[in-house]
Amino acid sequence: MKQVKTLHGKIKKISTKAGLPPGSLVFQGSGSSEKLIIDRFLFDESEILEFESIKYNDVIKNVPHNYCQWLNFNSVNDIEVVKNTGEHFGLHLLTVEDILNETQRPKFEIIDDYIFMSLKMIHFQDDEIVNEHISIVLKENTVITFQQRKGDVFETIRKRLRTNSGIIRKMQSDYLTYSILDSIVDYYYVVLEEIDFRIEELEEKILTNFNSDLLEDLHEIKRTIINFRKNVWPVREIISAFSKSIDQTRSEVLSHYLRDLYDHSIQVMDGIDTGKDMANALMNLYLSFSGNKMNEVMKILTVISTIFIPLTFLAGLYGMNFKYMPELQMRYSYPVLLAIMLTIIIVMLGFFKKNKWF
Amino acid sequence: MKQVKTLHGKIKKISTKAGLPPGSLVFQGSGSSEKLIIDRFLFDESEILEFESIKYNDVIKNVPHNYCQWLNFNSVNDIEVVKNTGEHFGLHLLTVEDILNETQRPKFEIIDDYIFMSLKMIHFQDDEIVNEHISIVLKENTVITFQQRKGDVFETIRKRLRTNSGIIRKMQSDYLTYSILDSIVDYYYVVLEEIDFRIEELEEKILTNFNSDLLEDLHEIKRTIINFRKNVWPVREIISAFSKSIDQTRSEVLSHYLRDLYDHSIQVMDGIDTGKDMANALMNLYLSFSGNKMNEVMKILTVISTIFIPLTFLAGLYGMNFKYMPELQMRYSYPVLLAIMLTIIIVMLGFFKKNKWF
Amino acid sequence: MKQVKTLHGKIKKISTKAGLPPGSLVFQGSGSSEKLIIDRFLFDESEILEFESIKYNDVIKNVPHNYCQWLNFNSVNDIEVVKNTGEHFGLHLLTVEDILNETQRPKFEIIDDYIFMSLKMIHFQDDEIVNEHISIVLKENTVITFQQRKGDVFETIRKRLRTNSGIIRKMQSDYLTYSILDSIVDYYYVVLEEIDFRIEELEEKILTNFNSDLLEDLHEIKRTIINFRKNVWPVREIISAFSKSIDQTRSEVLSHYLRDLYDHSIQVMDGIDTGKDMANALMNLYLSFSGNKMNEVMKILTVISTIFIPLTFLAGLYGMNFKYMPELQMRYSYPVLLAIMLTIIIVMLGFFKKNKWF
Amino acid sequence: MKQVKTLHGKIKKISTKAGLPPGSLVFQGSGSSEKLIIDRFLFDESEILEFESIKYNDVIKNVPHNYCQWLNFNSVNDIEVVKNTGEHFGLHLLTVEDILNETQRPKFEIIDDYIFMSLKMIHFQDDEIVNEHISIVLKENTVITFQQRKGDVFETIRKRLRTNSGIIRKMQSDYLTYSILDSIVDYYYVVLEEIDFRIEELEEKILTNFNSDLLEDLHEIKRTIINFRKNVWPVREIISAFSKSIDQTRSEVLSHYLRDLYDHSIQVMDGIDTGKDMANALMNLYLSFSGNKMNEVMKILTVISTIFIPLTFLAGLYGMNFKYMPELQMRYSYPVLLAIMLTIIIVMLGFFKKNKWF
Amino acid sequence: MKQVKTLHGKIKKISTKAGLPPGSLVFQGSGSSEKLIIDRFLFDESEILEFESIKYNDVIKNVPHNYCQWLNFNSVNDIEVVKNTGEHFGLHLLTVEDILNETQRPKFEIIDDYIFMSLKMIHFQDDEIVNEHISIVLKENTVITFQQRKGDVFETIRKRLRTNSGIIRKMQSDYLTYSILDSIVDYYYVVLEEIDFRIEELEEKILTNFNSDLLEDLHEIKRTIINFRKNVWPVREIISAFSKSIDQTRSEVLSHYLRDLYDHSIQVMDGIDTGKDMANALMNLYLSFSGNKMNEVMKILTVISTIFIPLTFLAGLYGMNFKYMPELQMRYSYPVLLAIMLTIIIVMLGFFKKNKWF
Repeated sequence: MKQVKTLHGKIKKISTKAGLPPGSLVFQGSGSSEKLIIDRFLFDESEILEFESIKYNDVIKNVPHNYCQWLNFNSVNDIEVVKNTGEHFGLHLLTVEDILNETQRPKFEIIDDYIFMSLKMIHFQDDEIVNEHISIVLKENTVITFQQRKGDVFETIRKRLRTNSGIIRKMQSDYLTYSILDSIVDYYYVVLEEIDFRIEELEEKILTNFNSDLLEDLHEIKRTIINFRKNVWPVREIISAFSKSIDQTRSEVLSHYLRDLYDHSIQVMDGIDTGKDMANALMNLYLSFSGNKMNEVMKILTVISTIFIPLTFLAGLYGMNFKYMPELQMRYSYPVLLAIMLTIIIVMLGFFKKNKWF
Repeated sequence: MKQVKTLHGKIKKISTKAGLPPGSLVFQGSGSSEKLIIDRFLFDESEILEFESIKYNDVIKNVPHNYCQWLNFNSVNDIEVVKNTGEHFGLHLLTVEDILNETQRPKFEIIDDYIFMSLKMIHFQDDEIVNEHISIVLKENTVITFQQRKGDVFETIRKRLRTNSGIIRKMQSDYLTYSILDSIVDYYYVVLEEIDFRIEELEEKILTNFNSDLLEDLHEIKRTIINFRKNVWPVREIISAFSKSIDQTRSEVLSHYLRDLYDHSIQVMDGIDTGKDMANALMNLYLSFSGNKMNEVMKILTVISTIFIPLTFLAGLYGMNFKYMPELQMRYSYPVLLAIMLTIIIVMLGFFKKNKWF
Repeated sequence: MKQVKTLHGKIKKISTKAGLPPGSLVFQGSGSSEKLIIDRFLFDESEILEFESIKYNDVIKNVPHNYCQWLNFNSVNDIEVVKNTGEHFGLHLLTVEDILNETQRPKFEIIDDYIFMSLKMIHFQDDEIVNEHISIVLKENTVITFQQRKGDVFETIRKRLRTNSGIIRKMQSDYLTYSILDSIVDYYYVVLEEIDFRIEELEEKILTNFNSDLLEDLHEIKRTIINFRKNVWPVREIISAFSKSIDQTRSEVLSHYLRDLYDHSIQVMDGIDTGKDMANALMNLYLSFSGNKMNEVMKILTVISTIFIPLTFLAGLYGMNFKYMPELQMRYSYPVLLAIMLTIIIVMLGFFKKNKWF
Repeated sequence: MKQVKTLHGKIKKISTKAGLPPGSLVFQGSGSSEKLIIDRFLFDESEILEFESIKYNDVIKNVPHNYCQWLNFNSVNDIEVVKNTGEHFGLHLLTVEDILNETQRPKFEIIDDYIFMSLKMIHFQDDEIVNEHISIVLKENTVITFQQRKGDVFETIRKRLRTNSGIIRKMQSDYLTYSILDSIVDYYYVVLEEIDFRIEELEEKILTNFNSDLLEDLHEIKRTIINFRKNVWPVREIISAFSKSIDQTRSEVLSHYLRDLYDHSIQVMDGIDTGKDMANALMNLYLSFSGNKMNEVMKILTVISTIFIPLTFLAGLYGMNFKYMPELQMRYSYPVLLAIMLTIIIVMLGFFKKNKWF
Repeated sequence: MKQVKTLHGKIKKISTKAGLPPGSLVFQGSGSSEKLIIDRFLFDESEILEFESIKYNDVIKNVPHNYCQWLNFNSVNDIEVVKNTGEHFGLHLLTVEDILNETQRPKFEIIDDYIFMSLKMIHFQDDEIVNEHISIVLKENTVITFQQRKGDVFETIRKRLRTNSGIIRKMQSDYLTYSILDSIVDYYYVVLEEIDFRIEELEEKILTNFNSDLLEDLHEIKRTIINFRKNVWPVREIISAFSKSIDQTRSEVLSHYLRDLYDHSIQVMDGIDTGKDMANALMNLYLSFSGNKMNEVMKILTVISTIFIPLTFLAGLYGMNFKYMPELQMRYSYPVLLAIMLTIIIVMLGFFKKNKWF
């Protein structure tokens, strides 16, 4: 409907879909203009065939018996191709809609004979935390992944497939799906550790080198944690649901691995919560330090003012031009006054010292 | 029973009903004076009949076999008509009471042979967030919607009905009800995005162009979120209950759509909670910025005062009129004193520089 | 056992009962000295008999077959009468104890053949929120209500009984109990709306006419909400329990009404929580406004001080009495100094203007 | 194993037991040096025998048929006696360990043929809130209570036993146990009321006679509530568990009393939570008042400074000693300047008045 | 992947494993360079054999019938040995991975015929709280413990084994495992008491000897509690799971001990939460004290300024050099002015006294 200019200069679409019939296929997202590239892996325990940048025609080719297929879409810009792929594999219209919607909340669904998962791949790009929407379809011996743009966290899976390291090629599509989830969750740790590292760095700065500008860094961390939490929170349920569906409907080989993965997802949430607590503790620290700085400033002002304002008054007193001021004529008035002033200074300093002002 | 003048100049009725017998039909709300307009849609897969601004007599006309009927009331001012409609369709007295009560909390009920839902339609009107109470009755092949005033979020549903786009006319009254709920929830996204947008805008302003007046904007956002949350919170249960009732008592065709809608409602709640967290983080940011500004003000005052107050004292000292002040007569007293004063200024500035005051 | 003088001048009894055997009948409360008045209603669908200020002898009179009896006690000062009434109706000793204890937490119990409820009637008296303890006993065709003092929220029930309006006289004691609960909950709305109204009023005042004295009003509202919540919170369970007991053991006629009442009680809790959120938001607003006021005060002080303190120093400089100060003798020293001073003022004002201090 | 000096001058043992084998019998607590006194009550409905300060030999005497025995230990200093008693009554080694450990968290256990409870008796001693650890063993017709020191909340139970008031002597050991729990919970009310009273007193002081020293009282109350809550929280479960064990394995006579007691424990928790909310509200009030006081101080400073600093500058201006200052020679310079100064004062005061500074 | 320098000068590995295949054996931790030492205990009720610093060859030796074996690894640096040990005892690849990962979250697993637990051993070393990762494997009559470094909390268990004190040698591997858990949890108490002690110490300091530097101590305590909580929180579940597995699959002898241990773990969590509340209360106390100090500073400044600034103005007034100032020539101007000034001082002091500024 309306288009608004966001703060970061990108074009944000406000709910392009509000009001459209459910199941309408409309691309929703930041609109990366990358060309759609599809990669295809075909493998069994003894052989692996890798096809890069295939055409749509190759997507719908048959999979040889006992082979496992992995189709990876690098972007979902081309609605037609995604829609046709969905039709070929018998995906529900709403599933295709979810694939196209980059703002979709993470979810898990078993529909007819396939499993659909959508979640967030969170990793670093040029020191910035990047959320990337990823959809995973697991149907029989085929795994299809739809990413938002080129560049992902799956390079090591590909390597293992090519070199047949680990048990990845002995296992089937279930295990491949698990590996994909595992890679995604592993990268959550990287993000979490980066956040922990930034918090520690900031804590160090606040404690040793307080500067009011640290506020913006602190706010940035809090915002990052809030967003990270929002995206990671549902992943636990997804893994749990995947785990249950595997236990019940397929082999039990994976269950230990999945329980382990589930443990990891809980660990990440724990880490985020601890991070949140730490960030709040830091905010308190910042505010308290800021208040202490203010106290110091006020103390300096007060020390200087309370010492010199009375002295200035005394000086002003003997700067008056009255004709009859006997002190003015006396021989030792000046040195006596200087002595009195010195006494006042010493008494004042003693008072502040006693009250531990410095 | 008393009438109070609210802040916004409207007349608020304080619990007109307290003390009346349950089931008393009294209109409760802000009392829009719009004329009641009733629209009627009759459709099956092949045909659609649209009647605008019908009389009450048309409301109670029979529905042809296999047709689906949608009655839309644009206001509920006319208690008689609402009551008679309720009687015609066999609605419970308490249902009619809920329809008339614009302050009714969102709810879902299966009563005898009909389903009753009441919830809040939240949308924008002239940049203001507007809550509109809407009641939905689903009985056999008839759907009745009672709105608070003209202008709604259903225009696209009507369009789809007219043009037979999507599957809306192939389906029955269940699907129409779902479409209505879907439209309402879709607009929650629009509101949510507007709130997110305002938060971002405000964050940008606080960070780049701090101004103490931003406080009122911030408070306004917090209040909006609190109210939005209050109205959206119960919708999830309503969809869940509707979903269950459909699964059990009717066809299962809708269940995927409804699960999707349920997901959306959770997503909205997540968004609101994240928005709340962000608003709180912003409040902290505002307070900290405000504190920093204060610190800066105090630093300026302190720098100026601690430098010039001692100097003024020195000047006052030699402005005294004692007869015996040897320095006054010396040849180089004045330039020496000026040099001393300059030294004090430089030392002071060095001190502040070292302590990173500027 | 000690007696303490409370802040409001009343005598507070500190746990008169601590240490007494359970079931000891001791009056616990603020000790209103009102005379006990008992009212009795006897009605069936065709007839109603009303007895005001009856004697205890009338309390134990038989109830004609098919009639419904409502006994209303206006105070529970007279322990003997309450105890004897309890014995007559076969109430458990602990029930009687609860009736006498005005500080009793709201509760619901099915004991033998009667239902016992105790809750708080909250209404306004002279612009003050008043908590009144009320106990309800429902046994067969008799309903007994024990209030703390004269004046209640049941006037409309009596009116409906007398005029036979609504279905109240067609129904039996269950419905009368429901009507009593309904009246009590309806008044919670009035209190809630008054609280909402006061919050809005206070918000308006803070935003348009900030005054540090508003703090006491704000604290008052917070305290009211905390206490209101404490008393209303258990009512939901009571209605739920009553609803279940009715569904199971008696007719199902009331169930729709009770579900509705349950909805209302949830709505009230929602409203209280929203009110609490609003009050907290207001407290933040107050603190921020207060901080902003402080900032403004400091800015004024700083502007005046930083402009005039240096100028005063300059003036003091040329007020010194050194014999050899060449500037003093020069022809245009004075106008030049005035020009310098003016320049300083303008530069300073420019600086503050640029930094948006005013 | 190390011994540290606490703030209050007592010797605190840091985990004397860490590293010892489970079930090691070591006394853990503040080490009151009181002599162990054992009291014994033997009663049935018709007779009561009371033995004060009995020897250990009497502890292990047989209990006549149909009599109920209550053994009360006033301290648990004498490990040998406690251990032997435990052995005589067949208590598990861990039970004896719990009896000796005064820092034991409240708990409930059914072991073999006895019930073991340990909880905190909280009462006043010289205006101080005192936590006392108490262990209760209920085995057949014997109840054994182990207290930390002389002086308890059971005096009224003893009195009732002696005078045979209430139903206490008609009932058996179950009821005696209930009475003991009831006395303990009743005293929680006293503590709660004292806390409420102190909160009210403090609130009154803050509102009418603000003083920054009230902070320590406020902190004291918060600490008391935190500790009280910690000790009372588990009592609810204990009563619930006791209630269940009684319902299932013994007579149902007590169940009404126990439900009532359970209600009381919930009421106490509610009261504590409300107290916590109130204490937090008070802290906010304190901080806001403190901020307001600061504002007032700053306003006074600002009013005086902004009025007199410019005037002082003017005076300084005409105190300069330039040779050529025409105003100095004019006839009406002085009164004109005075008039100007007066005007400045009036304008300033008007400004502050308009801005509602006083 | 990348190596970052942490604040404390250690090398932190950021997720060495992200991207590796699950089950890859990589050591994850702070990389202590200690040599791996393995100790072996073999015992039955009558005999105990202790082997210190055994070779790997001894690890895989058979255990005599009816003997219980305890293998303790002092570090897990040597991946090969750990891996081979795992293979010998039939541990799952993921179990070995968890043993090697010192950042592993506490967990409990029953896999095939063994129980695996990993948790944190928290104790003091040179006044610092140290987290040490420990893995426990219980398989038939063998218990294997993997620690992070030399020095542990098990010395008393060894002593009891050697001296056959308690029932430890009569029991089997289950009881040994319980003893190990019990020792770990016992040390949590020591940590908790140390935290409580530090909180009390800090509270005392804040109340009696406020100093803004206490902020860092306070922050340190908060951070310690956050981390402690994170590590202790999962231990409860572990004990509960262990307890269940013992009850079901093995003897019930241990159940009382385990319930007791479970109680302890809850007690520790309670203590941590109370500690958290106390730390937050202390933070409030700190902030309030800090604000009060500021108030005092401002009051001193204001008292001095408001008294002397007007006086200085008066002095300046009569320091002016106007030719026509009649007061200058009058005989008693000076003493009269002095009297006026004294009056001002007295009035001002009276005002401040009345307003309780000192």
